[in-house]
Amino acid sequence: MATKLKPHKDRLFPPDQSLREVAARLYTEIKGLPIISPHGHTDPRWFAENTAFANAHELLVAPDHYLLRMLYSHGISMTDLGIAPSQSGKVVTPRAAWRTFARHFYLFRGTPSAMWLNHVFAEVFGIEVCLDGSTADLYFDTINEALEQAEFRPRALFKAFNIEVLATTESPLDQLKHHRSLQSSNWDGRIITTYRPDAVINPDIPSFSKNLSRFGEMTGEDVFTWEGYLNAHRRRRRDFAALGATATDHSHASALTATLTPHESDKLFNKILSGNFCSEESTLFQAQMLTEMARMSLDDGLVMQLHPGVYRNHNPRLFEQYGPDKGADIPLRTGYVHELKPLLDLFGNDPRLSLILFTLDESTYSRELAPLAGHYPCLKLGPAWWFHDSPEGMMRFREQATESAGFYNTVGFNDDTRAFFSIPARHDAARRIDAAFLARLVCEHRLDEDEALQVATDLTYHLPKQAYRLDRLDSQDAVIGD
Amino acid sequence: MATKLKPHKDRLFPPDQSLREVAARLYTEIKGLPIISPHGHTDPRWFAENTAFANAHELLVAPDHYLLRMLYSHGISMTDLGIAPSQSGKVVTPRAAWRTFARHFYLFRGTPSAMWLNHVFAEVFGIEVCLDGSTADLYFDTINEALEQAEFRPRALFKAFNIEVLATTESPLDQLKHHRSLQSSNWDGRIITTYRPDAVINPDIPSFSKNLSRFGEMTGEDVFTWEGYLNAHRRRRRDFAALGATATDHSHASALTATLTPHESDKLFNKILSGNFCSEESTLFQAQMLTEMARMSLDDGLVMQLHPGVYRNHNPRLFEQYGPDKGADIPLRTGYVHELKPLLDLFGNDPRLSLILFTLDESTYSRELAPLAGHYPCLKLGPAWWFHDSPEGMMRFREQATESAGFYNTVGFNDDTRAFFSIPARHDAARRIDAAFLARLVCEHRLDEDEALQVATDLTYHLPKQAYRLDRLDSQDAVIGD
Amino acid sequence: MATKLKPHKDRLFPPDQSLREVAARLYTEIKGLPIISPHGHTDPRWFAENTAFANAHELLVAPDHYLLRMLYSHGISMTDLGIAPSQSGKVVTPRAAWRTFARHFYLFRGTPSAMWLNHVFAEVFGIEVCLDGSTADLYFDTINEALEQAEFRPRALFKAFNIEVLATTESPLDQLKHHRSLQSSNWDGRIITTYRPDAVINPDIPSFSKNLSRFGEMTGEDVFTWEGYLNAHRRRRRDFAALGATATDHSHASALTATLTPHESDKLFNKILSGNFCSEESTLFQAQMLTEMARMSLDDGLVMQLHPGVYRNHNPRLFEQYGPDKGADIPLRTGYVHELKPLLDLFGNDPRLSLILFTLDESTYSRELAPLAGHYPCLKLGPAWWFHDSPEGMMRFREQATESAGFYNTVGFNDDTRAFFSIPARHDAARRIDAAFLARLVCEHRLDEDEALQVATDLTYHLPKQAYRLDRLDSQDAVIGD
Repeated sequence: MATKLKPHKDRLFPPDQSLREVAARLYTEIKGLPIISPHGHTDPRWFAENTAFANAHELLVAPDHYLLRMLYSHGISMTDLGIAPSQSGKVVTPRAAWRTFARHFYLFRGTPSAMWLNHVFAEVFGIEVCLDGSTADLYFDTINEALEQAEFRPRALFKAFNIEVLATTESPLDQLKHHRSLQSSNWDGRIITTYRPDAVINPDIPSFSKNLSRFGEMTGEDVFTWEGYLNAHRRRRRDFAALGATATDHSHASALTATLTPHESDKLFNKILSGNFCSEESTLFQAQMLTEMARMSLDDGLVMQLHPGVYRNHNPRLFEQYGPDKGADIPLRTGYVHELKPLLDLFGNDPRLSLILFTLDESTYSRELAPLAGHYPCLKLGPAWWFHDSPEGMMRFREQATESAGFYNTVGFNDDTRAFFSIPARHDAARRIDAAFLARLVCEHRLDEDEALQVATDLTYHLPKQAYRLDRLDSQDAVIGD
Repeated sequence: MATKLKPHKDRLFPPDQSLREVAARLYTEIKGLPIISPHGHTDPRWFAENTAFANAHELLVAPDHYLLRMLYSHGISMTDLGIAPSQSGKVVTPRAAWRTFARHFYLFRGTPSAMWLNHVFAEVFGIEVCLDGSTADLYFDTINEALEQAEFRPRALFKAFNIEVLATTESPLDQLKHHRSLQSSNWDGRIITTYRPDAVINPDIPSFSKNLSRFGEMTGEDVFTWEGYLNAHRRRRRDFAALGATATDHSHASALTATLTPHESDKLFNKILSGNFCSEESTLFQAQMLTEMARMSLDDGLVMQLHPGVYRNHNPRLFEQYGPDKGADIPLRTGYVHELKPLLDLFGNDPRLSLILFTLDESTYSRELAPLAGHYPCLKLGPAWWFHDSPEGMMRFREQATESAGFYNTVGFNDDTRAFFSIPARHDAARRIDAAFLARLVCEHRLDEDEALQVATDLTYHLPKQAYRLDRLDSQDAVIGD
Repeated sequence: MATKLKPHKDRLFPPDQSLREVAARLYTEIKGLPIISPHGHTDPRWFAENTAFANAHELLVAPDHYLLRMLYSHGISMTDLGIAPSQSGKVVTPRAAWRTFARHFYLFRGTPSAMWLNHVFAEVFGIEVCLDGSTADLYFDTINEALEQAEFRPRALFKAFNIEVLATTESPLDQLKHHRSLQSSNWDGRIITTYRPDAVINPDIPSFSKNLSRFGEMTGEDVFTWEGYLNAHRRRRRDFAALGATATDHSHASALTATLTPHESDKLFNKILSGNFCSEESTLFQAQMLTEMARMSLDDGLVMQLHPGVYRNHNPRLFEQYGPDKGADIPLRTGYVHELKPLLDLFGNDPRLSLILFTLDESTYSRELAPLAGHYPCLKLGPAWWFHDSPEGMMRFREQATESAGFYNTVGFNDDTRAFFSIPARHDAARRIDAAFLARLVCEHRLDEDEALQVATDLTYHLPKQAYRLDRLDSQDAVIGD
């Protein structure tokens, strides 16, 4: 008595017939465009080694903090979900964990996780019944069998998914072995890295000092001096760019920036190095480093991404036992107007800087972010992020940002995911929501349909390539907005 | 020339035909389910004594701060509304006050008050013309006559309204006379109390010290020692539970919690008792008491409700003359992420704790509350509260909370009202809005209609019973989510 | 191959057929009502001198910070937009700047600027093709030719636009020459001034001290004493009222108010005069001055408008070169509950005070502003302001404010514009959005259509006249709400 699974061709389109027809026409034109994925967290090893994924649980449940958090919130333990504690500890089998997940799949009703997963189940694995306790084993076996097939290997799927470029995210301490291997391989998939320096910028990380030593060894710089430390960043940014990186990515607790003098920075850096610093000094150091990163971008042209406003690992017991990324990161109220001003005072009008802003505080869309991006040449708005990368969330972003920032200060979609198999599902949802939003503007006579089509194409393809400077190699791209 | 009053059968459903049909189908299935009212402010005396209500004014206008505030905001004095000042002072007759209310009923256009009242007028009293100056007397007389009939007595209406359980809210200083009388009566209506200890927890209340003395007398504990004070709470919680209480309720200016050591708590409590404390100490004491209440819930199983973020009695002149609950309470910006962390660090993963969170700051739905409830096992989200218990407000709650928290971290509807006659109107509106929201998910193909029906039933009936632990006595309830 | 320009008769109405029909019926009844414009920034000289506007660029681009900001955000320099730097500096011709604007008009897709301008192009200038690079010259020539015609002179357009009353905004230091000239002219257009005293209230303005001297000269008061300074305000308010002013307007960084004693105020004023004050003292002085302005309103009856929460001139380099109002003002998080309390404690219940509140922080609509206006007799809510004076923004205002404040604590529409030609476009958009919102209430059976029509008429015509006390001269106005 399992229910039939069949994602509807008009899903996410508005129910009103006139809106739906326009949305469907717009979507038809963009659904086949190549996927530009300029920000994500897939593992470059998959593509470098091209080995098969292990099983349904390891592929779809274990790495997905959206799933773990919801199941955990209903009292299901991490070990019952197949997640081993960092110390010793028993954990159930992948099949048992999958069954627990399946039995509780109803908890995801109305969430983007259910939507993405059903897309993956139906479109990637060809499954035709819904997931619940009764179909758990059918799913587990079907998926595991598929994963053994050649067409489910990472490189084959990369092509099948029609991905034109995929960015991963690495620490400066990463040797970039897989990216180097990809670059020297004869496979033509474009996979690039992104410079994410939190590990050597956030002094609150327990391993910070060890990380710095490693940073010094890798770069040959004396990173225990302010100048050497900055030089080490410059070198690693250059290394990343050589492997295709066009961007950096910064996760900070706030959007605070600073404009210390070199002398003040030097002094603060020494305080940080001493380990004997207070939380205000740590915050100030990170604020100053955002400014330093922007300054380096003027020279090396890397696009800067800022993802502020998350309380990481809010649940200390869970963190101690199971580590990070288990669904216990919580958004914070976030400000941008005062916080970004020091950086903007220096570089806000410089055409060489491109700074893409994200938020988890939706109240800032219309109040701060759209007005800022609608004025400063260096600012662009990233798409609805993380908790808000969902049908309602993406729609709110368009509704609240467009009137002050316009479409052309936004940068298209980021899938931002570790879940490689869900990339087409996520881009598809974003394209549908953009089509739905644009259809409303058309039907309310706020935009002509041909303009809407141009905007839809730009949001899907041209804007992400332009904003992330991915188009510098080709010249055949259509002009934006025309 | 009075206008016809006839609440439309499809009210609150979306106008689009396909949406409306689905919404109507879902609503049809849930409209007849019994009312679960786990949080409200009706007077247990009504049901204990079962005497008739006095008149339309005393029943519908005088106790309704939603009405008083709006009328007052248009310059109508409290005395013209039939509200006597606490000192001496003339007040108009109930009929005159009702006429004033009727003449200004147009001020409520587009507000939930008009919707609830029209439901009461039409469905409870059978009135068929709209309320305005010309029909004021007709209304006043019709309602007063009805109130004299047996079927308008509290117990008869409780049954007619199809209420399965109704919770009231009492102070620890309340003797619970009416609840005891109800328990020993042979009437089978289930009316339970709720432990609301503000009077002995908030040191800023002028009568705090007198309240403590009374608290000591009632419990036989030495409440002027920290241990005795905590014991007094434990005793009263037990007394409340014995009269059916399954929950506590906490109204604090913020959601702040604390984890002082017993020694620190003891010291702070003595400072509070001395009367010589600053506002930070009062805040810290209340923060610590939330943690103590949670700790007691681990033992006695009472569900904890937190209603933070209100500036009570914002208008001091009005308060001096007319007392509290006259419509001068104003919401405050409220935070949860840092504020709840001390309590969550202690008990966030404990399956014995259930903490239901409310807010008047809608910006926290998607930013803080849904992410917190979507992770912590102990947290659930209460429904849209007070100012936001309205068609637009309830819809925003679903739109902004569902994608991160899911439906199953919410607890169904609270009517939260003193206005007994409006209870069916309020639950009806909530059911209609849930049906409307679910209908959109169905028509956008984000949920199957059979799933939507299951969710609608759970939101209306099973989730409130489960979340408030009201179902421990029966075993025939359907399993949630299936 | 230029695209046809034809604003659709049903623009901004909801696509659903039943909603659209109701919206169209409501709109039909209000679209021809006279324009009440109680708050704006047109230049009274235009009407006093009635001379022709210079050209399309000077009329439509140069003064419009909405346009400048968006174009600047895409890297187009102010000089390329025809804006001269305050020091010397080359600037392109008006025609060249117009061409640049036209080529980038696609950037405004989905913004209110495109909507307003297309309305002006089509309805005022009769242009039938869309603006882009290919039609730039056609537009420039057509508009310039039109501007030479008699029917495009300010007074002729004032009548053609069906404006009943238009308020401008002047500093206390303004001689009001044009308003005096208008008053003594035989032209019967009603143009009134508004008292906007920032120049002599904000001590952070560089010219503050010079302004005070001028203030003293103009009023004959010793403005370097606290009493004399207050008297000077009283005099100028009287002068403004004599020229028709019914309101004051206050732009402050926050909504903070204060209740210092006269002695404390005197002392603070002297500190301010000394020039040797800190930022807290400046803030406190401005807070106290809001209270003083309210106190004066009790006597002279001027309605008070408060527009808080803007970071003016956020981009210092742009400001140094090009001055204010170039699109670099950014909204700030804003609070009202604590901030207004001192003023409300004094005058909140006084029927003589009318204080109209605005915000750029939409999170305050449902949390603070609607609850405050829904209680205090002196408070009303101004319409969606500035960045939020847009289809989505106006709709959010109604959706988030109506249920707590009702319609009758709002004051209708403000166009708030320097762009005289766009006044009909802006009022038309507001009327359409109100019709669309009301149509939804009607189709969801939350309001009868005849009630909705009454509300629409009140919002368009009666409420602004009443709220701004513009109707004191006539007696034939319909009663509100009936």
